[in-house]
Formats: sequence, structure tokens, C-alpha cells
Amino acid sequence: MTKLETTLDRLRPPSTEIAADVQRRLDRKTKPLGSLGRLEEVACAVAGIRRTPTPELPVKAVVVMAGDHGVADEGVSAFPQAVTGQMVRNFAAGGAAINVLARQAGAQLVVVDMGVKEELPPLPGVRSARVGAGTRNMAIGPAMTRAEAVRALEIGIGIAEELADDGVTLVGLGEMGIANTTAASALTAAFTGLSPAEVTGRGTGIDDATWRHKVEVIRRALEVNAAVPCEALDAIDTLARLGGFEIAGLAGVVLGAASRGIPVLTDGFIATAGALAAARIAPDARGAILASHRSVEAGHRALLHALGTKPLLDLDLRLGEGTGAALAMAIVEASIRVLREMASFDDAGVSGAVR
Amino acid sequence: MTKLETTLDRLRPPSTEIAADVQRRLDRKTKPLGSLGRLEEVACAVAGIRRTPTPELPVKAVVVMAGDHGVADEGVSAFPQAVTGQMVRNFAAGGAAINVLARQAGAQLVVVDMGVKEELPPLPGVRSARVGAGTRNMAIGPAMTRAEAVRALEIGIGIAEELADDGVTLVGLGEMGIANTTAASALTAAFTGLSPAEVTGRGTGIDDATWRHKVEVIRRALEVNAAVPCEALDAIDTLARLGGFEIAGLAGVVLGAASRGIPVLTDGFIATAGALAAARIAPDARGAILASHRSVEAGHRALLHALGTKPLLDLDLRLGEGTGAALAMAIVEASIRVLREMASFDDAGVSGAVR
Repeated sequence: MTKLETTLDRLRPPSTEIAADVQRRLDRKTKPLGSLGRLEEVACAVAGIRRTPTPELPVKAVVVMAGDHGVADEGVSAFPQAVTGQMVRNFAAGGAAINVLARQAGAQLVVVDMGVKEELPPLPGVRSARVGAGTRNMAIGPAMTRAEAVRALEIGIGIAEELADDGVTLVGLGEMGIANTTAASALTAAFTGLSPAEVTGRGTGIDDATWRHKVEVIRRALEVNAAVPCEALDAIDTLARLGGFEIAGLAGVVLGAASRGIPVLTDGFIATAGALAAARIAPDARGAILASHRSVEAGHRALLHALGTKPLLDLDLRLGEGTGAALAMAIVEASIRVLREMASFDDAGVSGAVR
Repeated sequence: MTKLETTLDRLRPPSTEIAADVQRRLDRKTKPLGSLGRLEEVACAVAGIRRTPTPELPVKAVVVMAGDHGVADEGVSAFPQAVTGQMVRNFAAGGAAINVLARQAGAQLVVVDMGVKEELPPLPGVRSARVGAGTRNMAIGPAMTRAEAVRALEIGIGIAEELADDGVTLVGLGEMGIANTTAASALTAAFTGLSPAEVTGRGTGIDDATWRHKVEVIRRALEVNAAVPCEALDAIDTLARLGGFEIAGLAGVVLGAASRGIPVLTDGFIATAGALAAARIAPDARGAILASHRSVEAGHRALLHALGTKPLLDLDLRLGEGTGAALAMAIVEASIRVLREMASFDDAGVSGAVR
């Protein structure tokens, strides 16, 4: 079997028995029933994914994958394509938002060049796993071949497995790639059946005319790639034709992490498109996905709905890079700490509710 | 002048010039304009409150004040009154939710007995600052005299000043007191003009019949204390008649912190009632208040609206103790870290937007 097939074969949904057992343990803690709200829900979910009622405090990593997009040729972004490579250098130098927020979270940062257009020199802390020098323009034909998409998926699986072997127990997704909101919008339209206009936002900050143009480019991409209706293609083909190296790589990270019982925090629109692709490739991966935040980007809500997840944070973020995933790690860690460290009514000699 | 008068005299609103200067600095960081959303807003607010464009990473403390309420005699809570003292012991032993979440936040925990009914023995980490053995029943007459309320306010001011002298630069509010949602609902009705039914929730988890009884008790308390309409009393009198020792103490913490340029994170319904009392006593204190989370409790929304603040988190919490304040500290710290540690476009050699 291929690495992808082995991984899909190993996938199991989280344990509902362990999650229910953890809720019963939380109900004996010194607090009114259910009063820690979503912290309790997250503790149960993580325990179910990890398949243990007593998960350790998380060992955290944010995986930021970078890639360029042929569709940038259509003039869909507010920033020049060179910014993708420049930002990878900024990640290596430690000056980007995700460097700062990964430090805040106490998370290891793993930056992967999945296929930036510019050939980058070796950079500290950046892995080279280039599938190509950017994808092809999806407005003309498929962005990737199926083989390229599978290669990107398997790179992601390999990184997740390596992190698991190193003891990482909580993974956040992040990305960088000029024009990748265009790819994410196309994938969202294909996966959800919504129209391009409904799932296309302002990206890094485009004006009205550029937005209309971006919607038209996405409409063309869907048509050219026969991705309307989405049912005509399988999820890997859809991902190949409309996605990107970094998006497919992140989908692979989700599959790899889920197959090892590791919860994955989504980030904004693009990373969540990768997560939905993973869940469409393997529905059993769905349970390992925790939604970190609600992005301002228009299509993000549709992705979260399709995943059936409710985000932990809503801070008007629209940056990507894994910033929302890193911020949400403190909430996940807090939930596990509550489970591990809070006293029960019996331990503390506190009276329970009288009615 | 009294300590309260001196404090009120020293209060100044936050610097809008410094906040605007910080926004300009954030606009030069390597990210699309405004893309860190509320993190940017919080960084600007904290800088304005601290009156420096380069605030240090916060040194954090959560002040949890405990007090008992005479109105518990009316049978308005799901828990027996003894739980207030039992939970103070639990705080001392380190087993309560706020112990766990203060550890998670890296915050010092300051527990203050403002007037628990039971005389507690000396407990590690618990300060005794008892104004009385619980308040009087507000359904029959004033919960506190004006002198008691001023004493509680000044205890809170003193604690905030002591923390400021020790280098603390971010304070979270927390409370414990069986029946104190009843006091908070009465204060909310008096301060906002909303009806008791609109601002009364389920507290620690009461049934429908107890909820109707609780609304009726609050209606009586407002009538007996001539707190309808609220304009007839000044804010300190309203606080005295309907509040509690811990609620007045927390209002004092807000006044003391604001007078020293220290941002204060509210918590749930009761702590936020204390924060609104502080803002009604001294409108210039308002700018130092950051809303940590949106509680499930019905009246909390009305308090946040009256304060004109939008909460950072919405995690279905309804526990109090400062748990929401502690969780939000990571968000505030992240915002300051972004301001201090992110590279600018010039520093990093990254191209800006082309349109």
C-alpha cells in the first residue's frame, strides 16, 4: 500500500466512550455542572481523540506550509507574488506574526516550503519539500496533477508522523501563499456547492473591482476543471485541480495527525479548506479537527459549517499563517489543565447543589 | 481627603494619542492592514491605559474576592451558603478552577475574604479583610450601609495599589459568594433600568420555580431600597443597598487599578457588575476596563452593553471566580507580544500591498 493508503486504513474516529467518561469526571469537579462550557467540551474531545481519559498537557507544534499559485497571474491579490518567498524568509528570521504567537503559545514552529515560486536558499528552521515551483493557473487548467496532490498529501502525513514520534500531541495548521484565498474559495465552492460569489472574500485587502474579477476567475476555474457539480470528481481530484501544494500538504497533516490520535487546530480560511479536503478524503479524520477561530473571510463560515465545528475564538482575524491556531492552543491547554488539576467535591470537602 | 476621594481625584481616561500612535506602528508590521483584528485593538487600548507606546509584557494578577449575602436566606441559590467558605478553603488548597486557570495564565492569585459568613481560620494565600459576617438581606433593607460600601471600595483600592507597587500591570477580577448573582441582577436592574426578569439568570443552576422566586426577591429588593428609578440614588448608595462586600471590593480594585494606569479584565456577571459600579462612580475609570468574556448569565449582556465593551471570549462559561479573566490574559499578552516582537515591512524586506 502507498503511504496515503496505509494512513487512511489506520484512521479511526475518536472514542465516544472516553469522551463520555471524561464528562462524568468533569461533573464531579468543584463547579456547577457544565459551568466551564466549551472548556469541558474541548477536554472531552481531546481525550476522545487521544484515546485516554487522562491526557497530558499538550506538547504543541504549528505547521506552516508555504506555496505559490499559478492563479496569481490573473491579478487576484493585493500583494505581489514575491511576498510568499519574502514571508518565508521572515518566518526564518522570527519576525512574522506566527513566530510571535507560536512563542506565546509555547509551540514549536515547523515551516515547510511546499513549492514557493522563487528557489529559496537554505533557511534556518525552514524545510524544503517542494512539489514544484508554484502550481499551474487553475483558471486555464488543473492547478496540480493528481500525482502532485498525492505527493503533497504524503509530505503532510510524513511531517505529522514525525511530530507524533517526537511527542507532539497538539498540532496547529498555518499557511502562506499569495493568491491562496482564491484557491480556498474555489475548493469551498466545489466542496459545498455554494456559488463563487458566496465564498469569495477580500483576502489580504482587495477593492470591489478586483473582488468581482476574483469571483469571475474562480467561476472559470470551476468550469475549466469540470468541478461543477462537485460530485463528478473525487475529493483528491478536486483538491488537485483547485487547491495548492500547501493546502494539500495541510490536508495531509490532518490525515497523519488523525491517524495517530492527535488533535488538529484549524486556522483561517485556507487552512480550514485543507482540513475540509482531509475530511472529504477520509470522513473518519473529521473528529480530530478542532476549529480555532472564525475568520473574517467570507467562505470560512461555510467551511466550518461543512465540518460541523464551532470555532473557539472570534477575534476578527484574517491573517492566516497559523495565528488563530496558535492563539487557540492556550484554550485547549487550559481545558486539559482543568481536567487534570481541579479538585472534586469529595476531595475538597465542598457541598454539592441542594436541588 | 479620604482614600476614595484621592483615588477619584487621580483618575484620568486612557491616552487616545498613544493608542493612535500604536495603531500606526501596527500598520507597519508584516501583515495586511488590520488583519490581526481585535489583537490590534487590545494592544492599542493597553498602551493607552498604560500611557506608553511600548508596554512591557504584562505582569498578571487575578484578585478573587469572597463574601456572603444575607439574601441567601430567601432561598435563591442552588447551593447552600456554607459553600462560600468551603470554596475559599478550596482556593487556599489550590483545587478550584481559578487556581488551575491562574497557573495556566501565569498569574498571581490574590484571594480576599471580604466578609464570608463563617469565620475562617488563617488560610495560606487568603487575605482577611472582612467588612462583616456577610451582608444583610436586601429583600428587607439595605445590604450594606454606605460606610460599609466605602470601606469595601477602599480595601479594593488598597489591594490594587499594592499590586501596582509590586509591578503588576494587568489585573483580572474574580469572585465567590453564594447568592451573589441575585445581588448582581439587582444592581444591573438599578444601573440599566431593565426589569428584574430581563437581568436574572440561572446562577449556579436553579429550576424554573426558583428562578421566578429569585425575580420576585429582586423586585422586592429594588422596591424596599427605593432603587427604582435608579436616578434617585448615587452610584455608591445603589452599590451599598443592593451589592455585596466582594462586589464593592472589586469596584474598588477597578478604581485603584485605573488610577494607576493598569488595565482590568472583567470576568462574568458578578465581577462585571462591580466594574459597572466603578464606572458609574467614576466615568473616567471606564477606559481601563477590558471585557474578558461573555457569560451565559442573562444580565451579563446588559452590563457589557452599559460599559460599551465587547468581550474577547465567548466560551459559554458561567462559573465566575475570575476564570474568564484568567483565560483572556493570554489574548492580552499575545497582543502586546505582537506589538513588541513583530517585524515591520522595512525591517523584514517584505513588499507592501500594490493596491
